[in-house]
Amino acid sequence: MSDEAAFISALRAIVSHPGARNLMDDAAVIAPPIGRDLVITHDMIAEGIHFLPDDPPGDVAWKLLAVNLSDLAAKGAKPIGVILGYTLSTPDWDAAFVAGLARALRNFDVVLLGGDTISAPNRCFGLTALGEASPPVPDRRGAKNGDKLWVCGTIGDAGLGLRIAKGEIKGSRRLLKAYRLPMPKLAEGMRLAPHVNAMADVSDGLLIDAGRIAEASGLAVSIDLDSVPLSPESVALGGNDRAARLAAATAGDDYALIFAAPQHADNAIAACAPEAACIGQFSEGNGISLHDNNGAIPLPASTGWLHRN
Amino acid sequence: MSDEAAFISALRAIVSHPGARNLMDDAAVIAPPIGRDLVITHDMIAEGIHFLPDDPPGDVAWKLLAVNLSDLAAKGAKPIGVILGYTLSTPDWDAAFVAGLARALRNFDVVLLGGDTISAPNRCFGLTALGEASPPVPDRRGAKNGDKLWVCGTIGDAGLGLRIAKGEIKGSRRLLKAYRLPMPKLAEGMRLAPHVNAMADVSDGLLIDAGRIAEASGLAVSIDLDSVPLSPESVALGGNDRAARLAAATAGDDYALIFAAPQHADNAIAACAPEAACIGQFSEGNGISLHDNNGAIPLPASTGWLHRN
Repeated sequence: MSDEAAFISALRAIVSHPGARNLMDDAAVIAPPIGRDLVITHDMIAEGIHFLPDDPPGDVAWKLLAVNLSDLAAKGAKPIGVILGYTLSTPDWDAAFVAGLARALRNFDVVLLGGDTISAPNRCFGLTALGEASPPVPDRRGAKNGDKLWVCGTIGDAGLGLRIAKGEIKGSRRLLKAYRLPMPKLAEGMRLAPHVNAMADVSDGLLIDAGRIAEASGLAVSIDLDSVPLSPESVALGGNDRAARLAAATAGDDYALIFAAPQHADNAIAACAPEAACIGQFSEGNGISLHDNNGAIPLPASTGWLHRN
Repeated sequence: MSDEAAFISALRAIVSHPGARNLMDDAAVIAPPIGRDLVITHDMIAEGIHFLPDDPPGDVAWKLLAVNLSDLAAKGAKPIGVILGYTLSTPDWDAAFVAGLARALRNFDVVLLGGDTISAPNRCFGLTALGEASPPVPDRRGAKNGDKLWVCGTIGDAGLGLRIAKGEIKGSRRLLKAYRLPMPKLAEGMRLAPHVNAMADVSDGLLIDAGRIAEASGLAVSIDLDSVPLSPESVALGGNDRAARLAAATAGDDYALIFAAPQHADNAIAACAPEAACIGQFSEGNGISLHDNNGAIPLPASTGWLHRN
């Protein structure tokens, strides 16, 4: 077990924002953004559920930060800073975690503002991310009848990466990296936000997350599986047929952005995010319907992960 | 294991603030306070460490909220809302937790803004509390040479309450309640903040928390153990001698406020918090020294809890 004081000293070395009060106070204190909304998100991860005992601790730190920043990205928010909830483990594990957190914070240009360190029977971490965004901030509930469904980012890479990490299959380092070191689409989210009616990130699976936008907006959504963007590495490893595409669309952990936008926003979206792909449409009703060039596809029993993110 | 969707539905029933977006979005979105600082704190609790497996789930919820609000109180902050990180357990346990959380939120007039629900091998919860306060917000690092050390709230009740909860001793329901249902001193913190140079809450133990203010401020602190306020119930059960007072001052979980204030603030403090007691003084140097009416007291081996809050 690490010593709490030693761990906080290690964290202190990566803290620079005055609002963190050098990690010596009960709370972080910042001047809030003026004329902007405050966006707050929190994700927890537990060993054995969200990460594997063998995952490199630095990658766990990266992922904890990245999944929260992805939620900010989905709201078009610019990160202000993050608060860490940490369960102490061994000194080596903890040191590697802090090093990975420092690397990830630098990479995303985000500051650590504070947190809490406890002992616990199992590794379980929480992170709260604060961001600022111009109102109106995109809501999952905002899709309109007739809106197109878009996705920005490739789908299914992390699902294959997880199978590589578990040793079930062999594959490219880029796929493994998609699972362990996801890249939140912060810049894309900020650019897209003014043009969308609803936006979320794909964390639990494309189908489940698209279904959540539809449900929250009181609409039905139809998805063209052939339009879902797969990466060349994913196609090389897993193929491109209906089964491979269904696996990708239900695997989760992609941290792509999924959004609803009116037809007249097509040009704006192409300008903001040339890689974005239109994969479906919202209509009156409820539920998800799925098709590809060969016709309708029955919904798979599982549309993604529950309990996970 | 509870169903995630069912749990979130139960939470949704206690959500009212529009910023929570009916718990249907990736993040909470609020308009930040104008002309005030934003105060953010996060505390985690794990079963077996911060609460007992037999503790009533509703009391665990209360305590999780209360310990975070106590950090806001120590910054003189008014709560804006809270974000919950939750590990699902059995439907009964989860339902009792939500009921207790609802009761505590109502009691403290605080709103739930969002959170995350996961499965995990052990119960481990996090809560982020957001508050607003007028700058300058009291800092643990602000004590000045010559400042008096004050405490607002009785010390040691929760320590005895923990022993009652464990079945080690028998005692009054009020002491057990001090352990299970602590009352953060929000009103007192807001009134005191303009008059203090430093403030914190007593979570890990009076001595350790006083020592942290001294250390963060680059000063020494001397504490008169006889001036530490004990409750009548605590004295009736545990006595009033040096050993009982040392036990109280190192037990933790009090959620009293501890603060440093200049001599000239005596009247203002008496007006803001008539129950506040002056228990010591800051001076040049470092470390804690302890005395009572019978003379100097060697520091006990443990001045409080580490890893806990």
